[in-house]
Formats: sequence, C-alpha cells, structure tokens
Amino acid sequence: MALKVIIVGGVAGGASAAARLRRLDENAEIVLLERGPDVSFANCGLPYHIAGEIRDRDELAVQTAEGLRTRMRLDVRTLHEATGVDAARRVVRVKDLSTGREFEEGYDALILSPGAAPVVPPIAGMDLPGVHTLRTLADMDRIKARVDAKAAGRALVLGGGFIGLEMAEALRRRGWDVLLAERGSQLLAPADPEMAVLLARELALHGVEVALGAALTAVRPDRGRLAAEFGTRVELVDLVLVAVGVRPETALARSAGLALGPGGGILVDGSQRTSDPHIYAVGDAVEVRDPITGRSGPVALAGPANRQGRAAADAIVGRPTAYPGTLGTAIVRVFGLVFGLTGASEHALKAAGRAYTRAYLHPNQHAGYYPGAVPMAIKLLFDPGDGRILGVQVAGSEGVDKRLDVFATALRAGWTVRDLEGLELSYAPPFGSAKDPVNMAGFVAANILDHVVESAGPEEAEGPREGRLLLDVRTPEEFAAGAVPGAVNIPVDELRGRLGEIPADKEVLVYCRVGHRGYLACRVLSQAGFRARNLGGGWLTYQAWKQARAMAEGGTPARPTLAPR
Amino acid sequence: MALKVIIVGGVAGGASAAARLRRLDENAEIVLLERGPDVSFANCGLPYHIAGEIRDRDELAVQTAEGLRTRMRLDVRTLHEATGVDAARRVVRVKDLSTGREFEEGYDALILSPGAAPVVPPIAGMDLPGVHTLRTLADMDRIKARVDAKAAGRALVLGGGFIGLEMAEALRRRGWDVLLAERGSQLLAPADPEMAVLLARELALHGVEVALGAALTAVRPDRGRLAAEFGTRVELVDLVLVAVGVRPETALARSAGLALGPGGGILVDGSQRTSDPHIYAVGDAVEVRDPITGRSGPVALAGPANRQGRAAADAIVGRPTAYPGTLGTAIVRVFGLVFGLTGASEHALKAAGRAYTRAYLHPNQHAGYYPGAVPMAIKLLFDPGDGRILGVQVAGSEGVDKRLDVFATALRAGWTVRDLEGLELSYAPPFGSAKDPVNMAGFVAANILDHVVESAGPEEAEGPREGRLLLDVRTPEEFAAGAVPGAVNIPVDELRGRLGEIPADKEVLVYCRVGHRGYLACRVLSQAGFRARNLGGGWLTYQAWKQARAMAEGGTPARPTLAPR
Repeated sequence: MALKVIIVGGVAGGASAAARLRRLDENAEIVLLERGPDVSFANCGLPYHIAGEIRDRDELAVQTAEGLRTRMRLDVRTLHEATGVDAARRVVRVKDLSTGREFEEGYDALILSPGAAPVVPPIAGMDLPGVHTLRTLADMDRIKARVDAKAAGRALVLGGGFIGLEMAEALRRRGWDVLLAERGSQLLAPADPEMAVLLARELALHGVEVALGAALTAVRPDRGRLAAEFGTRVELVDLVLVAVGVRPETALARSAGLALGPGGGILVDGSQRTSDPHIYAVGDAVEVRDPITGRSGPVALAGPANRQGRAAADAIVGRPTAYPGTLGTAIVRVFGLVFGLTGASEHALKAAGRAYTRAYLHPNQHAGYYPGAVPMAIKLLFDPGDGRILGVQVAGSEGVDKRLDVFATALRAGWTVRDLEGLELSYAPPFGSAKDPVNMAGFVAANILDHVVESAGPEEAEGPREGRLLLDVRTPEEFAAGAVPGAVNIPVDELRGRLGEIPADKEVLVYCRVGHRGYLACRVLSQAGFRARNLGGGWLTYQAWKQARAMAEGGTPARPTLAPR
Repeated sequence: MALKVIIVGGVAGGASAAARLRRLDENAEIVLLERGPDVSFANCGLPYHIAGEIRDRDELAVQTAEGLRTRMRLDVRTLHEATGVDAARRVVRVKDLSTGREFEEGYDALILSPGAAPVVPPIAGMDLPGVHTLRTLADMDRIKARVDAKAAGRALVLGGGFIGLEMAEALRRRGWDVLLAERGSQLLAPADPEMAVLLARELALHGVEVALGAALTAVRPDRGRLAAEFGTRVELVDLVLVAVGVRPETALARSAGLALGPGGGILVDGSQRTSDPHIYAVGDAVEVRDPITGRSGPVALAGPANRQGRAAADAIVGRPTAYPGTLGTAIVRVFGLVFGLTGASEHALKAAGRAYTRAYLHPNQHAGYYPGAVPMAIKLLFDPGDGRILGVQVAGSEGVDKRLDVFATALRAGWTVRDLEGLELSYAPPFGSAKDPVNMAGFVAANILDHVVESAGPEEAEGPREGRLLLDVRTPEEFAAGAVPGAVNIPVDELRGRLGEIPADKEVLVYCRVGHRGYLACRVLSQAGFRARNLGGGWLTYQAWKQARAMAEGGTPARPTLAPR
C-alpha cells in the first residue's frame, strides 16, 4: 500500500518536504495542509513588495497550490487547519476553514512545519487598526494598503531585527518618516554592538530615526493617528509595525505530546524526527543546536527550513540524512549597507563561557587600483588556543555577501584562521585582490594567534591609564582630524627614527586608521624591546565602539563627519 | 649578525616576501633587486588602464620603491638585474642597468621571484613595431599610446586566454575592431569547450570577431599597417597583441644549478625551498602541484604568488609553513559575462585518467521573485565513487564570483557534493535564494551520485540512436521554438497521463530547458518502470555544446536568437 504522509504547513520547510517526497516516491499519498490561503510564498520578499521593489504581488507566489497539484501530484489543501494530532492513532484532526467542516485524516508519517508566529507584547493597543505584524501575504497587503493610501505618513517600527530593519528601509523608501524603536541596547541582537552600530549610522544617514532602549508601553488612538507611548514619551504615528521576534508554533506538537526543547521549540534528532517516531518537524518551530556554543533553540531562517524539509523527506523514505546544525548565517541589506553574520557573536560566546579572540579589519572589496574600491568591516572571532573560527560579522556596501558565504563555508568546514590565510580565491581587479579580504582576515588573526602582534580591543583605548602610552601612528593630517583622547602622534614612517621619544617603561597601545600601520609599528616596537599592542581595527573600530556605547546610553547616532565606510 | 636576504624580482611574490620578512625580522638586511623600473605594480590591472577603466596610471603602483624604503626599510634597487647566482659561494651577480656597473652581493638566503615572460611564437614579424606583448607597465604604455593615437583601428589579439580575453574587451571598449584568434579549438584552455563557448558568444555579441583553430604564420608590414597571415588568409590590422601564454623565467635558477620540474618551472618544497637549501623561489616561475590531478607545472596567478612569497619569508625565519598546492582558481570578466573556474576541468581529468561525473545547472543568482534575477551556468565535476568535488566552472552576469569562491573553499576543504547540499549560506532576496546555487549544485550532483536520477552529457543527445526515445518535457511553445532533432514532446505536467505513449522497450533520454523538469520527468518514468536518463543542463547546455563543436570545426559563434543568459 502507498505510503501516506501528511504535511502541516505549506511554506518553506513543508513545501520542500512535499516536493522532495514526491520526487523520491511517485506513489506516496502526500497531503499538504495549509491554514492560510497560500502555499510556498516568498516570506522573505514581503518587505520588498511594500517598498515597491518587487512590483508584482504575484511574483511572491513561488509555487501555487494548483501548480503543486499538477506537477507534483500533491493533495494540497489550503484553508485547512490541523487542529490536533492523536499520535497513538496516527490521525490529524483537520478543520476546513472555508466550510467549517471537521474531519480526521490518518497518516503513516506526519511532518509538522507550522512555522512561528510574531510575538506581540502584552501591552494596551496592540489590537488597534494600524498596528501590524508582518508574516503572511495578508499582513503585507494590509500594511501596503495603508502606505499606498497615505503619501507621507509616519511609522513606528518596533524591533531592530531583520524584519524591523528591512521594513524601516521599505517605509522610508515609500516616503514615510520612520522611527525605529528597539528595546535593547543595539540593533540586530545576533550581532555585536560595535558592528551593529554601522546599521544605525546607515539608517540615520537615510533619515530613519533610531531609538535604542526604547520600550513601548502602550498604543492608543489619538485624533485619527496612533499615540505610541514609551513611558512618558509619546510619539504620534500613522502605523505601528511590531517586529520584536517570533515564537515557534507548538500548539499542534503539544497536542501530539511531543517533547519540546529548552528554547521552546520542537525537539528533533538529526533526521528531523520528533520524540514520536512517526512525526517529523521542520522549520522555524523546531529546536536546532548551535554547533559553536552548543545552545539549543529555534532559529527562524528560510535556508535551514528548506534543508530540514528535504531531510525529513529523505528520512521518511529511509535515505540516510544528518542535519548538521544551524550556524545562523544571515544577511540584511539596509539602504546602501549590507550586513551579514555567521556563527557566534562575541556576546553569545561570552554567555556560553567560550574563550575567544577577536580580529578586526577593514579591507577593500576589490583591488584598490580598480575604480569603486570601498572598504568593508570584518570582525572575526576565533579560538585563542587552536585558532578555530567561531563567528564572523561583515558589513559594507559591496562584496559583503561573498565574503560572508566563504566564511560560512570555512566555519562549516571546522577551519582555523590559518586555513583562511592560504585559501585560494578568485582574483581579477573587479572582483577581489591578490590577497582577498578573507585571506587578510586570516593573516590578521593568525598574527594574533601566533603572537606576532599582541592585539587590544576598542574598549581598551578609553581613558588615560597609568603606565600606558597611547600612540597614534597615522599621518599628522589624520591625527589632527580626530584622535583618541590622550594619544601622541608619531607617524609609522618616522617611528624607527623616533624610538627615543617612547618611554621604555610603559606599555604602548598603538593605533592607526584600520590596524595595518599599527601592526607594522608594533613589530618595530616589540623588536626594539618595547611592550606594544595594536588596537584591532584601529580608529574606525574604536569610533564604532564609542558610538555604539553612546547610543546604548541614550544618544542618537551622530551623522558621521567622516564617511562611515 | 643580521640575516641578509636577497630577493630577485619586486612584483607580487617578491614584494610580498620582502614585506613579510621585514615584519618578522626588523633587523634583517633585505635587498630587493628589480630589473625593471617599477616594483610591486598591479600586473592584473594593465588591460583596465588600456581600456580606460583605470584612468590614472599611478593607481597601478601598488607600492613605490620609495614607499618600501621608508616604511619597510627595504634596500630596493630598481633597474638592477641579477645576472647569475653562485650557489656555492652564496653570491648573486648584479648589473646596475642605469650605469652598467656589475658587482656581487652575498646572501644568507636568496628568494627568486623572476616571474614569467610572454611566449612569442617563432614566426616572422614578431619584432615589428606594432606587435606587442603585455607584461609590464612599459608594454602597457606602448599599447595604450598606439590606441590613444588612432580613434578606430583594428587589432589582432592572438590567444584566447585571460589576457587575450581582457584585451579583446579593452580594445573594443576603445572603439577598435578586434579579431581574437586562438590556435586551439576553444577559448580559455583551462575551461571546457561547452562552457568556454559562452565567452565566444559574449565577445560576438559585443562585436569581437573570434576565430578558433587560427594559427598565425607571419606578420609583415603592409602600407602602414600590419598584414597578419594565417596560412593563406590575411588580416590587415593596426596592432597585434601576442598573448599566447607565458614561460617561467628560469635562467637565474639554471645558473644556480637548481632543479627544474617536469613543467619547466623551478622545483620547490612545501616551504618554497629549492634544491639548494639557501635558495627559495616563488611566483610564476615555480612548479606547483595540482592537488586534483597530481600534475606539476608553473601556474601564473597573482594570489598564489603572494601566498608563496609570504611562505618563503616565514620559512626563512624558521616559522612553520606548508603551501597547500594551487587549485588554479581564476576569474575573468568579458563585457557582461563573468567566467570563473577552480580545480580541474573535464579535459584535465580525462588527461590525468581520473574518473569523474558531471553535473550541469542554470540557477538564478538570487531569488527569482526579486527584480533582476538572471541565471548562471554551473558545471560541477566530482568523483563518481565518493562524490568528492574535483572542479567547478561558473559563468553568468552576476553572482558568479561569490559561488566560485564558495566552490573553491569547498574544494580546498576536500568536500564531497553532499557537503554542498547542507551548506548554510546567506539568504536575503537581493543576494541569494533559500536554496543557493551552491546548494542546488549539491542537490543535482548528489542525485546523480546516489542514482536518484541517471544523467547524460550533452554529446549523448546527438543523432537518432537505435532503441532510444528522445523526450522533450518542456511546453509546446518552448518545443516549437527549437528542440533537439528527433525529440518528441510531452510536457512534464502531462507526463503521468501519457505514459502509454512511451515505448517500454526503449531507453528514454529526457530533457527540458535547464534540467530540472527533466529530473522530475525521470523520477516519474523510472518509478513507472522505464529506463530514463536526464540530459544534464538540458537544452541550454546542449546548445552550448553544439555551438562549441561547430566553432571548433570552423564556424563562428552565431548571434543567439534566444538570450544566451
């Protein structure tokens, strides 16, 4: 008899599982239950349609129900909600939302791909018209209708995560004023503050107001608008987008008696099998293990969801499969800035009690002699013992996605920073350099690992410290344009002739603009008998760190007088 | 006493070695001998200055001699030629080209970075004014002066390698007519013909005439122009660029009695040490081992040269180093097409007697629903037993360099195609897809490896074959617009209902446009008991293969009626 598989949830993970299953088993009976009206729509594209970048709404339908029926011979049932699972009898209780009819459907294997629901904080006014979340096409349509109807409104975007950032840009592109309010002390929580501040700068440059440490306490109607209260501060807006995170949809899993993990997601093994051997789960609702920190929790990303769907299908037909964990590789474009990250952040490593070392650098995306070269900022975290890569954050206007993906591949390979040094990447002037930014990151990190140079973090440059000389080795012109308070200036090219000016009994903390001249200076100094350390990422990283701290303490991002990138 | 190191050759490898050595040893005496007037110039940028893309010639000076003296305290001597090495006495004979003075310079360690010289075929007229090679800034200046002086000339570019391709574009951009003549049967010899033909198409689309199998027999002056003779065919041109390859400069190595390798380059070990323990060699002149085919020979690439220079410096100061071999990762932009490759080609694997399997695919560079999605062509070669990646070629207008670098990283990691399936790459609509092209390549290849589908190469689609049905599963509209001769059309969405039309005793060779619908059809067919195989890369790869064959047989690339990408 043909295998009968029910799949609950027809987006990303569920749709992938269904398609793979059909390809592997032409005879299986595959029932795809989707509560909403759409299957396999481009969730990640929603902000871009609101922005007007994706003009045709139909583009967002990656697959239609009809297409899946015809090509994949799937029994697709939209507007059908799975309301419960009787795991012992292997049946799903289903409600047809268009007729109200309820019935049971039996299965040999069940795949749960219920996704995650937007978190809505328990405060007054969240149910008002004009307060939105963004998860479905219907959500998108409501927001877009609102924006289409008003030429220049003002929006409050609550939450500085991926959706909040993309929506801040989308609404600004539509000519709206935007206040992006984040409860935490930085944007993009998976990143570190001195990197995430680059996003705040970019938003500020494009006229988005950013408020950190801003906790919404209530929303109420106010003369046709919405009054958003942050304690005593009130902001009048025309639209509120709540984008403070998502929570795995586990009602069905709980009805089936499935085990949940410490992060509140459905527990699965390496083949996506839950605690019930006939039930699999994939996507935003499942718990994944972070291979770096060992932490377990749900991660809402489309790529992993797709891969898990495929793995579940493979497992059901008995093919070997092993999901390798989720590194959390993610990327976001905010106006002209691209920000990406993979693996663990510094604060995640700290929280996990994992030792780490940092390398910062600002290499150009391609050969400096080819027109249009622009720097990117890279933060590389690695094991101080063996140099193993633990996490990477990259930000810049061009070439960021490429380096991020190479780092993500290296991270998956379990490489050390030494492996990055010798990596052979493509080079022609429009695309890279003979020493690619990835190689450069390897060089910088390996030099730290091998104690060719001792490195210091941006937080160490602050304040006068007893027994320390702060040495700026940039040119006098650069120094005059702005320097770390208390620093003295000896340009690197003059350093060898001016060693006598440096007190032998002090530690020398050296910095330049990005860290390279500082490194050269440290080599000169340490070989001349001085104790010298190099400020990682130089003046640029120090400035970012300082600005991040100021913002966390309630300041707004200054419009930088120097180009931020 | 301070270590004394002489470095011969001040570009890429030599300059990298010198800078690294200084950073590692502040006290070493480092003499950098450079025969030419410039050190550390951007060799790879020369065509872009001729093209006018890099407007300022000074941009090409990555480092100046003066800069290296000041910052790195190097004893830089330009216009100084090393004329011989007495390895027993550890001295280099040097000639100061500006004064004619000759002298000896002793060393503790010697690094040879002599580079490679353009090959000039032994035919008449190669010494005529107007016949050029392109290796140095002086070469570039001569060519540029010629192009600057004549608004619309005609150039013969001899050789379809990287420099030939870049110069064909550069000269065309300057308004010249260009004939690109290649002696072999395809452009870009390290690639395979059905991929390299995409370059020929792009050149043709931009008005460059491409001739394959065209062996220049003589050049002679002809009424103020140059007559380039290809046997009986004569082409009148205003400039000839000879770009048929380079030959390692080994005169100095031979004078030192160093061992050369089978490919004519200087033999070195993993720390760049030659057969003489005090002499190291780096860059285009050394022999490197191809980790895939095991073949040894010189490879002229800037990235490896830089890495080798660094490794030699590390070795000289006693730091552990191990050069991992050269995969030959390379990329070229030709008008709107980007073409990259890493690892071995199909013909290199054939020549090495290495078993391989092919996967072809044409994924979009980013989400199809985001504006501007364009497909790229990927050819992935892998081991038919364990799936190990052996080589990759990628061509397209966008996102090519990123995928190439990820493939190069995977290749270096020794991964199999299965590792590509689960790789977690960054996804946001402007940058990729939930299933990135790299993942897709893994899916396609793993399905072949696991016999989920049997694959056929484009050459197998030709001609009517006994006992075989050629089945086109595209739409009737696509079929009508052009199909493989002899094919019958059953659209994939109708296939399940029309299985009765397919003879049970024949093998079915299935194809669609890019291979995906063909794969689905094969799954339907094979599970219904038919023997089915899928044409890898579908109609697009078949067309490319057919065009490559036609060109190799003397045809010119047709201007494609369908958009080639």
